[in-house]
Amino acid sequence: MTDRRDGLAGRKPACGDHERDYTRTVSSVTKTRLEAFSDGVIAILITIMVLELRVPHETGWEALAPLLPLFLTYALSFVYLGIYWNNHHHMFHLVDGVNGAILWANLHLLFWLSLVPFVTGWMGENHFAAVPTAVYGVVMLLAAIAYYVLQTTIIRHQGAHSKLASAIGGDVKGRMSPLLYVAAIPLSFVNEWIADALYVAAALIWLVPDRRIEKAIADR
Amino acid sequence: MTDRRDGLAGRKPACGDHERDYTRTVSSVTKTRLEAFSDGVIAILITIMVLELRVPHETGWEALAPLLPLFLTYALSFVYLGIYWNNHHHMFHLVDGVNGAILWANLHLLFWLSLVPFVTGWMGENHFAAVPTAVYGVVMLLAAIAYYVLQTTIIRHQGAHSKLASAIGGDVKGRMSPLLYVAAIPLSFVNEWIADALYVAAALIWLVPDRRIEKAIADR
Amino acid sequence: MTDRRDGLAGRKPACGDHERDYTRTVSSVTKTRLEAFSDGVIAILITIMVLELRVPHETGWEALAPLLPLFLTYALSFVYLGIYWNNHHHMFHLVDGVNGAILWANLHLLFWLSLVPFVTGWMGENHFAAVPTAVYGVVMLLAAIAYYVLQTTIIRHQGAHSKLASAIGGDVKGRMSPLLYVAAIPLSFVNEWIADALYVAAALIWLVPDRRIEKAIADR
Amino acid sequence: MTDRRDGLAGRKPACGDHERDYTRTVSSVTKTRLEAFSDGVIAILITIMVLELRVPHETGWEALAPLLPLFLTYALSFVYLGIYWNNHHHMFHLVDGVNGAILWANLHLLFWLSLVPFVTGWMGENHFAAVPTAVYGVVMLLAAIAYYVLQTTIIRHQGAHSKLASAIGGDVKGRMSPLLYVAAIPLSFVNEWIADALYVAAALIWLVPDRRIEKAIADR
Repeated sequence: MTDRRDGLAGRKPACGDHERDYTRTVSSVTKTRLEAFSDGVIAILITIMVLELRVPHETGWEALAPLLPLFLTYALSFVYLGIYWNNHHHMFHLVDGVNGAILWANLHLLFWLSLVPFVTGWMGENHFAAVPTAVYGVVMLLAAIAYYVLQTTIIRHQGAHSKLASAIGGDVKGRMSPLLYVAAIPLSFVNEWIADALYVAAALIWLVPDRRIEKAIADR
Repeated sequence: MTDRRDGLAGRKPACGDHERDYTRTVSSVTKTRLEAFSDGVIAILITIMVLELRVPHETGWEALAPLLPLFLTYALSFVYLGIYWNNHHHMFHLVDGVNGAILWANLHLLFWLSLVPFVTGWMGENHFAAVPTAVYGVVMLLAAIAYYVLQTTIIRHQGAHSKLASAIGGDVKGRMSPLLYVAAIPLSFVNEWIADALYVAAALIWLVPDRRIEKAIADR
Repeated sequence: MTDRRDGLAGRKPACGDHERDYTRTVSSVTKTRLEAFSDGVIAILITIMVLELRVPHETGWEALAPLLPLFLTYALSFVYLGIYWNNHHHMFHLVDGVNGAILWANLHLLFWLSLVPFVTGWMGENHFAAVPTAVYGVVMLLAAIAYYVLQTTIIRHQGAHSKLASAIGGDVKGRMSPLLYVAAIPLSFVNEWIADALYVAAALIWLVPDRRIEKAIADR
Repeated sequence: MTDRRDGLAGRKPACGDHERDYTRTVSSVTKTRLEAFSDGVIAILITIMVLELRVPHETGWEALAPLLPLFLTYALSFVYLGIYWNNHHHMFHLVDGVNGAILWANLHLLFWLSLVPFVTGWMGENHFAAVPTAVYGVVMLLAAIAYYVLQTTIIRHQGAHSKLASAIGGDVKGRMSPLLYVAAIPLSFVNEWIADALYVAAALIWLVPDRRIEKAIADR
């Protein structure tokens, strides 16, 4: 990817005056590979989760009943990873260049996301028992924090007139979902279903893609 | 991916008058990453299915005999996922831009496809018992419906003069394969082989790539 | 990927006369996604094979001894898959466009390659017993035939002045390796080590990338 | 990927004099696919490692305690693979073309990296016992040597005025980390914690991306 871009960038714009694009293309070399790597990791995570759904040895309908909680948790985690892919994608629309700090903030996010299959399996196989339900929330909270750190790192790199900063504005959703996880963790020990309802709610508020960022892209 | 395209789009066409291409390139930013993500998920699914073929502990030919039904089911599911990749690919030829609804309709399709390794393992390991055979059909039916929903969402987004809508026309194949699954599900309880024959038939009618869409692309 | 290329192709060549490139770019849309998909599947196969190397429960050096045959088989299969990736890659250098027959010939090749982790595990875990050693050769033979079918399908599509046909010329290597597998399969029942030696030999003759094709590319 | 680049390269630079870029673009065809393949393999490795974290059957906090060493080892290996991806990425910034030797040197590196999930699981599940801790170092040492071989192969291919050679200069880090592994392997038998501390140290010195190479890129 890299070099072709360099090739394009190396050509003086044909009949043009687009010096700014020239610079942006060079600095986004790294971004392309970072996006491809992140997409790869998220695609693998969303897919290997299904390996936790072990094939039963029985052949009747009753063989599927114990798998139901695992199936529901799998569907929830699938939606969560879909949301992260979607938001990651929208966020990087507004990113021009990438530095070492952004690379590592991104790997940090991927690390916590990589634990999603584990907590999905633990919560699902134990029919939403208290501790696994709480641990699911802990991993989700850490992933949300990692996403926030990544966003902040990008904004700091972009400087005073950060396109991302102006696009996300008040960031209501970004602040609400961690609060839901913080509430769900202790509530898992009161009643697992309350925690589960909060996890579903946290997914639902993100299902709509971020119109603020979409708007900022359209405005460019 | 994103930014490079922006970079290309940002350059006024060198000596040209291709304003329309300019717009199309910008809106297809998201499409590129959606295609890459879908390809990644389907590539992983088609590959991890083989993990269900567990290595036997014995070393004689007879160790392979119980694996035969699983092998045949694996081959069938491999063809199905190949068909989905192929059709997905052809469909997105005629897509210019992607919105939030299309993103989620696509993830919805990937969700049902992600259950293919599970039902493949269950049907294959149980030598085509009735319930697993029926459940295989249910997942195939839900994937076919998800594909139809995705197609409809794209056509709605493209509006009145949808290139995709005019390309698919009467869509005989798209309507036949769900009917075959609907027939196969209850017939699994009469005789599994009838259901299996219908699954093979549903794969065979799709093996030929969609000439209508290929034609529409060639006509552009 | 698709659309961007269309976008590039849609621009009349800036100050140029490269009509031929225009056409070639349009028809290679599908090729790009086919290459990416094949790379994805081969990357996954080469990586999940290592899951057959199960972590031992003991902690001494002696825990590694029974893993040695599996490790050696893994290394052999890693080299084989690396060769297929390499040759696939070189072959598609000389491919301009892709039709439905090529798509399915390619999936057919990927199908047999997807069985490599299974036969690697079976041969490796059973310390090169006769039947697993023979079955390893059968899968390798079928993959080699599938590669030959793919090559032939591309040449037929390219027509009389096929660049690929003139590049591969006599194709000594392509004819030698299937012969080695054909010899190894029955010899597995005489002495497994003869078969293993033939598999290693078949890998070694391919280790050098295909200079004929490299030359043809350089000559273009 | 290939052909599009050819398409771009085939166009005479619009109003330009960038013959050198023309050549570089053609020769970097192979590089693009090599980078994508390497990214794919590393993304899969970094993700399937988490499959070693098996879901416990118990539901209490105590079920997580035995997983702690595995979790810590997983985090360490995640950082290592992230470092390799990062460094691989920076190194290939300074690579224009790829030959057969570079392709195989790269596959050789990926081979040793593919053993990281195995040694991670063995060291983690056995709470840092002596032999698994030493074997972890052996695999890390072999991967470091493979990286060095790859670097040397690229420099030899680039010839006298190698951009990579001048960028890496004295290469202090590249020489320090193998020394740390060489020290850690025997020290595993004295006290595992010393070896573990050395592994963590070897990761920490690499965490900062290679500013020499970053500088060389900026200087171009």
